[in-house]
Amino acid sequence: MKKSLIALAVLAASGTSFAQSSVTVWGVVDAAVSRGTSDLNSVTRLVGSGISSSQLGFRGTEDLGGGMKANFWLEAGVSNDNGTGGGSTTNNTSTGTGATSSTSIGGTATAGTVATNGTQGLTFNRRSTVSLSGGFGEIRLGRDYTPQFWNWTVYDPFGTNGVGTNRAMLSSVALGGTTGSTTGTAVRASNSVTYLYNHGANATYAAGNQGLHAAVQMYYGENVSTSTTPNDGDGTGIRVGYNAGPLSAAVGYGQTKFATGNMTMTNFGASYNLGVANLIAQITKDQLGTVKGDGMLLGMTAPMGAGLVRASYSTYENKATLADSQQVAVGYVHNLSKRTRAYVTYANVKNGNGANAALGGATGVANKASSGFDIGMTHSF
Amino acid sequence: MKKSLIALAVLAASGTSFAQSSVTVWGVVDAAVSRGTSDLNSVTRLVGSGISSSQLGFRGTEDLGGGMKANFWLEAGVSNDNGTGGGSTTNNTSTGTGATSSTSIGGTATAGTVATNGTQGLTFNRRSTVSLSGGFGEIRLGRDYTPQFWNWTVYDPFGTNGVGTNRAMLSSVALGGTTGSTTGTAVRASNSVTYLYNHGANATYAAGNQGLHAAVQMYYGENVSTSTTPNDGDGTGIRVGYNAGPLSAAVGYGQTKFATGNMTMTNFGASYNLGVANLIAQITKDQLGTVKGDGMLLGMTAPMGAGLVRASYSTYENKATLADSQQVAVGYVHNLSKRTRAYVTYANVKNGNGANAALGGATGVANKASSGFDIGMTHSF
Amino acid sequence: MKKSLIALAVLAASGTSFAQSSVTVWGVVDAAVSRGTSDLNSVTRLVGSGISSSQLGFRGTEDLGGGMKANFWLEAGVSNDNGTGGGSTTNNTSTGTGATSSTSIGGTATAGTVATNGTQGLTFNRRSTVSLSGGFGEIRLGRDYTPQFWNWTVYDPFGTNGVGTNRAMLSSVALGGTTGSTTGTAVRASNSVTYLYNHGANATYAAGNQGLHAAVQMYYGENVSTSTTPNDGDGTGIRVGYNAGPLSAAVGYGQTKFATGNMTMTNFGASYNLGVANLIAQITKDQLGTVKGDGMLLGMTAPMGAGLVRASYSTYENKATLADSQQVAVGYVHNLSKRTRAYVTYANVKNGNGANAALGGATGVANKASSGFDIGMTHSF
Repeated sequence: MKKSLIALAVLAASGTSFAQSSVTVWGVVDAAVSRGTSDLNSVTRLVGSGISSSQLGFRGTEDLGGGMKANFWLEAGVSNDNGTGGGSTTNNTSTGTGATSSTSIGGTATAGTVATNGTQGLTFNRRSTVSLSGGFGEIRLGRDYTPQFWNWTVYDPFGTNGVGTNRAMLSSVALGGTTGSTTGTAVRASNSVTYLYNHGANATYAAGNQGLHAAVQMYYGENVSTSTTPNDGDGTGIRVGYNAGPLSAAVGYGQTKFATGNMTMTNFGASYNLGVANLIAQITKDQLGTVKGDGMLLGMTAPMGAGLVRASYSTYENKATLADSQQVAVGYVHNLSKRTRAYVTYANVKNGNGANAALGGATGVANKASSGFDIGMTHSF
Repeated sequence: MKKSLIALAVLAASGTSFAQSSVTVWGVVDAAVSRGTSDLNSVTRLVGSGISSSQLGFRGTEDLGGGMKANFWLEAGVSNDNGTGGGSTTNNTSTGTGATSSTSIGGTATAGTVATNGTQGLTFNRRSTVSLSGGFGEIRLGRDYTPQFWNWTVYDPFGTNGVGTNRAMLSSVALGGTTGSTTGTAVRASNSVTYLYNHGANATYAAGNQGLHAAVQMYYGENVSTSTTPNDGDGTGIRVGYNAGPLSAAVGYGQTKFATGNMTMTNFGASYNLGVANLIAQITKDQLGTVKGDGMLLGMTAPMGAGLVRASYSTYENKATLADSQQVAVGYVHNLSKRTRAYVTYANVKNGNGANAALGGATGVANKASSGFDIGMTHSF
Repeated sequence: MKKSLIALAVLAASGTSFAQSSVTVWGVVDAAVSRGTSDLNSVTRLVGSGISSSQLGFRGTEDLGGGMKANFWLEAGVSNDNGTGGGSTTNNTSTGTGATSSTSIGGTATAGTVATNGTQGLTFNRRSTVSLSGGFGEIRLGRDYTPQFWNWTVYDPFGTNGVGTNRAMLSSVALGGTTGSTTGTAVRASNSVTYLYNHGANATYAAGNQGLHAAVQMYYGENVSTSTTPNDGDGTGIRVGYNAGPLSAAVGYGQTKFATGNMTMTNFGASYNLGVANLIAQITKDQLGTVKGDGMLLGMTAPMGAGLVRASYSTYENKATLADSQQVAVGYVHNLSKRTRAYVTYANVKNGNGANAALGGATGVANKASSGFDIGMTHSF
């Protein structure tokens, strides 16, 4: 994802003059045979996005002079196991989504409703923004990632993809998912205005920029002032981080106002690259209405030959029910090239106090363990 | 939109020989923070297409020799505030559309149903055609703009986008929209065959061609002959115009047969470019069943420094109820480059005799005024 | 389709180094005015895919060294008469599809449900795969064509498009279509793993490879083991062929397990190119639950000037009801260039023993004939 394909292009101005410009068509196609097992049952599936998110995108940058740039970014999720796309929400709440189905995310059967199903066409659900950038930073308008999401994924050895996905982040989604209300804002928000400082084009890459980086976002639920729930779907988010050589750390916070109870997500992530291994940790604290949840992750990645070993231990506890899950995940990614990788991932989750998290599409059973296994390949272009 | 990005490309013939060809990937991403206020309420939103329609397209032309060309054009609407696409209709009536929602167009709350909602994936709803062109003109097959639509948008300083959108055109849509029946043909028609004379690839650009230009279109509702409404969704359209130096004028007519009452749209537009300002006018006369409506617009655009000032006064009256609306719109567009512009637009609409038109997403109140304000940027690639 | 447009591209690695790569954006836009007539009624329509399937795709290949390649292929169906896309299925059964409508395929009114309607956005419903290939062959993961489908289309002078579409294949779909259960696997399957030997990137082209070629596929319905129908939507397919100079022959077999009764499709196709004409034949034997059906086709294509004459005679009989249909189709394709063709096709189908197959959108009448006529153009890029 750090590389992009730039189609050389020519701007034809009314047939009279030409100037150089560029549009980038890029994407990822990742597929895995995935096996999930629980105390109750098992299932074998072909899944997309085993270690990286399958996507197709169009983006470009125009130099406006004086250090200013105009940028656009249209990024569509692709469910390449069946060719369909991903859903979005027009107002950051479940009323703004279309037909939904209880699709699991990253292998957990307890995740809530997600706006994706068999009729779902491609949308630029992952990101659709236009922006101005320069020495001051960047102002972006459109649908974009929420700032606090980046801590969940940047400080996760498995990048919130596949059976190894960060339990802390997954359960945060589930916490909100029980009412369906965080569908829109745990990961992304529509109708957003974001200011970014010292970020790359993709907010993820802030992890690689030295010094301070920050993102501040607000988004609209777009209700009229006389609505009985005028603030439903409105929200704000912020993330501030610092990178210095091997050290990277960032704190994130986001709150979305829902008619059914506000959702607040606070997290902190850090990593330290020893060279032989990159050590990673994060903590997350969420609240939906009056229900709180706490999560954490300890993990690492380590280069090994032409590949990368990855491992994590992550937990989540619902502070109201005390339901808690602990997950161990290990994986190996073999680089066939800079753009193509083969991988295997194994994860096991244990449940207590009524929790029933499950992996790989198996059906969760309260207080019982579940395991998942992915073997696949990913190709970026 | 007058510029396009041409990806240089090579045609690989079975790995043995190569010939040059071209495919153009182009688009517009336009976003604005929009504020609407009525006597009842107000709302702040992030909207797409504030002054130009957000879109992503693929097109190309092949020289067949002898002055003949083959052309294709696939153009998808993009709701970049949330990443979703736009709807279409398979039979030019509302029965051919899918799930619909009462989304407002261009700021009016009185517009009818539009096939776009949270689950709407990308479609080439704006245009999907294949054509042959040459000295004789062009024959196009597919989904395309209806001829009379071009007068509404070409002779509108605001190009039928944003809060300044031509009241005459908007209310024409609303007239039909009260039965949902013009959803498919006020702007575009599916299943169409069009003959164009002296047009550019995009019918809009006929405004720039000197001398006579014309478009004649027919489209099918595709009902079997034994249907109880065999002609439902069938229609025809024509537009004839003339450009001579600073003068541009065109007349348009379209009729769609609906089971619920035929829809007829007749309009005339003209502009005269004085250099310091381009003066613009149009009139429209519509009839849906037995209900008639009349609209008009007076407007201008004027270059100012690195930008363009735009203003219009437009009205519409339902001849049956005598409900009438009068709108004033003013705006300024600042060119950051040929491809990137920042803009502000303000509009105010007054209502009489029970009309309740509203702007910027606010809720209309009978006989009361409403105002809307957009501030945003647009980037084409 | 044998030619592709390769956008020259440059891989930008974090802004520091560049390496050459490629992404191909390709497509077909095919449109025809189509007329269908039956004993009961008639209808005129604008249709897409008259002789070739309208589509838009993105694909690429990366050389991994040592004779190995990584490949991706994302191919979306386009209904260019109205701009919409095509549906898919997440689990290879009708429960995995979304809202459906009784759209006819290729002119038959008896075909079953297809997941495409007015709200259908673009999906990569035709194919979405990632693969590794080398001297050993190719391993593909994702949504792909079922092996036995290729015999239906490769050994059909009309390539299973338009009013001339192979009656044997159409009725096979209809056989399954009566329960809606083959929607997912008669042509394509989701969640598939395929091994291909001596194939081109597109499995079709195996017809052009000399010697033995083969494809073996399995696909998952993705049901948990405790499901009451744990194997619903699981399936396997195989195709083995041999090409030697003018001779081409292949046998295909596919079986999908459905809760409502397994579907088995067996077929054989062969062609012999005499130079002045290519002679084509195929037979198909299907079984859905306990109902069997038999089909056959005899056909030919012959170059004539700058064009191609095509003709076929194809039949299908439901062995349970003895309902049988016999179809004659003739057509001419005129090459305007290698990428652009104009065409006319005429077909007539006769029905017996209660069969009511119809062409071109007309309504079928038991034991009565129906005819269809397409005139259009197709352009590939």
